[in-house]
Amino acid sequence: MTSRAALIAIGSELLGPRRQDTNALWLTEQLESVGIEVVRKACVGDDEQEIALELSFALARAPLVLATGGLGPTGDDRTREAAARAFGLRLTRDELILQALRQRFARRGLEMPSVNEKQALVLEGSRVIENRRGSAPGVWLERDGALIVLLPGVPVEMREMFEHRVLPEAAQRFGAARRYRRILKIAAMGESAVEERVAPVYARWPEHSFTILSSVGEVQLHLSASGTEEEAHRTLDAQSRDFEEALPGLIFGRDEDTLEKAVGGLLRAGGKTLAVAESCTGGLVGGRVTEVPGSSDYFLGGLISYADFAKEKFLGVSRELLILHGAVSEEVSRAMAEGAARGFGADFGLAVTGIAGPGGGSAEKPVGTVWIALSQKGKETESRRLRLPGDRRSVRTWAGATALEMLRRRLAGAAHA
Amino acid sequence: MTSRAALIAIGSELLGPRRQDTNALWLTEQLESVGIEVVRKACVGDDEQEIALELSFALARAPLVLATGGLGPTGDDRTREAAARAFGLRLTRDELILQALRQRFARRGLEMPSVNEKQALVLEGSRVIENRRGSAPGVWLERDGALIVLLPGVPVEMREMFEHRVLPEAAQRFGAARRYRRILKIAAMGESAVEERVAPVYARWPEHSFTILSSVGEVQLHLSASGTEEEAHRTLDAQSRDFEEALPGLIFGRDEDTLEKAVGGLLRAGGKTLAVAESCTGGLVGGRVTEVPGSSDYFLGGLISYADFAKEKFLGVSRELLILHGAVSEEVSRAMAEGAARGFGADFGLAVTGIAGPGGGSAEKPVGTVWIALSQKGKETESRRLRLPGDRRSVRTWAGATALEMLRRRLAGAAHA
Repeated sequence: MTSRAALIAIGSELLGPRRQDTNALWLTEQLESVGIEVVRKACVGDDEQEIALELSFALARAPLVLATGGLGPTGDDRTREAAARAFGLRLTRDELILQALRQRFARRGLEMPSVNEKQALVLEGSRVIENRRGSAPGVWLERDGALIVLLPGVPVEMREMFEHRVLPEAAQRFGAARRYRRILKIAAMGESAVEERVAPVYARWPEHSFTILSSVGEVQLHLSASGTEEEAHRTLDAQSRDFEEALPGLIFGRDEDTLEKAVGGLLRAGGKTLAVAESCTGGLVGGRVTEVPGSSDYFLGGLISYADFAKEKFLGVSRELLILHGAVSEEVSRAMAEGAARGFGADFGLAVTGIAGPGGGSAEKPVGTVWIALSQKGKETESRRLRLPGDRRSVRTWAGATALEMLRRRLAGAAHA
Repeated sequence: MTSRAALIAIGSELLGPRRQDTNALWLTEQLESVGIEVVRKACVGDDEQEIALELSFALARAPLVLATGGLGPTGDDRTREAAARAFGLRLTRDELILQALRQRFARRGLEMPSVNEKQALVLEGSRVIENRRGSAPGVWLERDGALIVLLPGVPVEMREMFEHRVLPEAAQRFGAARRYRRILKIAAMGESAVEERVAPVYARWPEHSFTILSSVGEVQLHLSASGTEEEAHRTLDAQSRDFEEALPGLIFGRDEDTLEKAVGGLLRAGGKTLAVAESCTGGLVGGRVTEVPGSSDYFLGGLISYADFAKEKFLGVSRELLILHGAVSEEVSRAMAEGAARGFGADFGLAVTGIAGPGGGSAEKPVGTVWIALSQKGKETESRRLRLPGDRRSVRTWAGATALEMLRRRLAGAAHA
C-alpha cells in the first residue's frame, strides 16, 4: 500500500511556452524511492489566490503536498501568504530567523535589503526548515495528519533541503516499500517489433507493469520492483533474463549505458580498432563513437566522403563502381567499408551511404534508402539495405544507430535480429 | 484584457520521474499567439475520479479548459467517462462515428477490435471533433459560456485537431491582442557576455520584457510585441535593429534558423565549398553541416583524424610539426585546415583539434584546450585557441559551434567579437 503525494510548482515563468518545471521529476524520483506515489502535479503562477486554491485542492487529493517556489524576497513571491490564506493561519515575524538572515548577508559583507525581511515571516503553527544553500527558508506545516511542505524553487536549494530535512521524516511517516528501477536498451529496432517479442514476458509477470519508451533508433524497457533491496534485485534480474531470452543478443545495455559505450567496451576488450566512412550521416557515427571518453584507444578516425570524388581519392572506391551502381549501392558501401579499414589500418571498417532527403530520391532509390557495410580483416564484408521512414534527421539518426548496432552484434557474436 | 485558459494532461505515464508532458508547451504557444493566457496546468493519472475532479476545478479557474489524453480505446482511457461524471452528462453510442471508425480500419484491411467501440461514445450535448490523424475523436463541450475541449494525447493528432478545429473558434470567442514573437540567435558567446552588451537595449525598451536563454554554444534573445500585425512587426524590427547594433555582425539568424543553415546559405550564395578536419569533435562539425538539406552543393567532406598518423597520411600534416608542437597546437590545427582544403580541393578548410577530457590534459594544455583553424584559398590561415569549461560533451559542442561561427563571420565579412 503506497501513499499519495501531490506536487505544486509555483512561478509564472513556468506557464509560458518555453520553460518547464523540472523539480517535479526529481521529487517524483525521490518519493518513489521510498514508496510514495505522485498522484497529481500542477503549475500555477505567482498569484496568491491561485496558489491558495491549489494548495487546498491538492490537500484534499493527497496527505502529502509538496510545493516549490515563491518563497523568495520579492513582491512576486506569494507562497507564504497563499498558505496563510488557504489554511486561515496568521503570519508573524520571527526575530531569530531575521537575525540569521542578517548574519547570512553580513558574512558576505553585505547589508540585508529590507525586502528580505519578508523571509522571516512564519506561518502560525508551522516549523521552519533551514536553507543551507540560499536565503529562503522552507515551511513544514501539519494539518490533521496531513503534511504540507513549502520548498524553494531553486533546484540546488530545494534538493538539499528535501533530501536532508524532509525525505527521512516523510519516508517514515508515509513511505512504503521502496521501488527499484532498471532500464534495458535495444538499438535499431522498431517499438512494435520489440513489443511483439516481449509480449509473452509481460504475460509471465502479470502483477508487474512495464513501460516501453522509444526514441529514434532506440527502444527502452522500463522495469521496476519493490520489496527489500535484495528481493527487488532478484525480481529485476529474473525479469531481465526473461527479456534477454525474448530478445537474444539484442539488449545492448542497461540504465546509463549508450550504444557507443557498448561498442567501445567490446572493441577495447577485444583489442580491436575501428575506422568509419560516412556519406549521408556526414560525421554523426564518428561523433557518437567519440562521445565516449578514451575512445582514441580504439577509434582511429574516418572519412566523411560527401562528394563522390572523395570516395575515390581517399577510400579507393573505383569510378566504375560509382558509375555502374551509383553512390548509394551495396557495392559502393562495401568498397567504402573496406577502403576505410585499409586506409586507416583498422580491424573494422564501417560505412554508411544513403539518401537522407528531402531531395535526391528516385523510384528505384527513394528517400530513406541507406546501405550499411561492415568489413573485418580476414572476413567477408557484410552489407545491409535499409528503407527508413521519417525526415532527414530521423533517417540519419536511424542509419547511424543501425551501423553501430551491426558492429556491436558482430563484436558480441550475437545472432541477427 | 486577455482570456484565461487551464490545461490538463491526462496519463499515468506523465506522473513518473522520467517523462514530461510536452503538449502543454505547444498549446501554450498557440494560445498565446491569439492572446489567451494559460493560468494553470495540471497532470493527472488514468483515474476517472481524479480526472473528473480536475476538470471541475479547472473549469472554476478558467473559461477555457483544454485536456489532452485518455481518449483511446483501452480500459486505461477514462477521460470521456470522467467528463460525464464531472458534468453529470450521459454517454451514448453514436452509430455514425462507429461506422466511420469501422471504415477507418477497413481501409487498412483490418477488422475493428471491439475495444474501439468505446471511441463512439458521445457525451450528451457535446460536439464531436474529427480526428484526421488517428482513431480517437475529440470532444467540444460548452457549459454556461465556458468551453471544455478534450483532445487526444498523441501530439501529431492533437496538433492537427487543435490548429484546424479548435483554435480558430477559440480565438474568436476568447482571443485578445495577439502576441508576436521573434528569436534572435548568437553562437559561440557566453550568456553573460551577450547580456552585458544588450543591457542598454533592455533599458531603451522599459515597457517590454525580453528573455535570454542559453544552451551550449548558443544564446537566444526572445522578443515579443502585441498590437496589429503591422504594429507588432514594426516594434520587433526596431528592437531587432537595436540588438544588431549592440551585437554587430554577431546575430547569425532568427526563429528557426540554425548556425549550420546560416553557414550553408553564405557558402551557397558565394559559390564556395568547404571541407573539414576534425580531431576532438570526431565528426560533429561535419554532422552539423550536413543536417541542412542540399548541403552536398557546398560540403565536399572531411577527415576525422582521431589518430595522429591519419593527420599525416590524409591531411599531409608533417611528422615534425606533430612531434614538435603536439597534436593540439596552433601549428597542427593550421596544417589540418590547409590539408583538408587542399585534399578536397575546397575553398575553405576548417579544423578542430583539442582535449575534450576527462583524461588527456596537462598543466600546459589542460582539458578544454582547443585549437580551431580556418584556411581559405589565397588568404592567410586564421587560428584561435579556446579554453572551454564543462564536461566532454560541452567542450565538443562549444568547439564545433565556435568553428562554424568562425567560418560564418569570415563569410559574412563580420568583425570579430
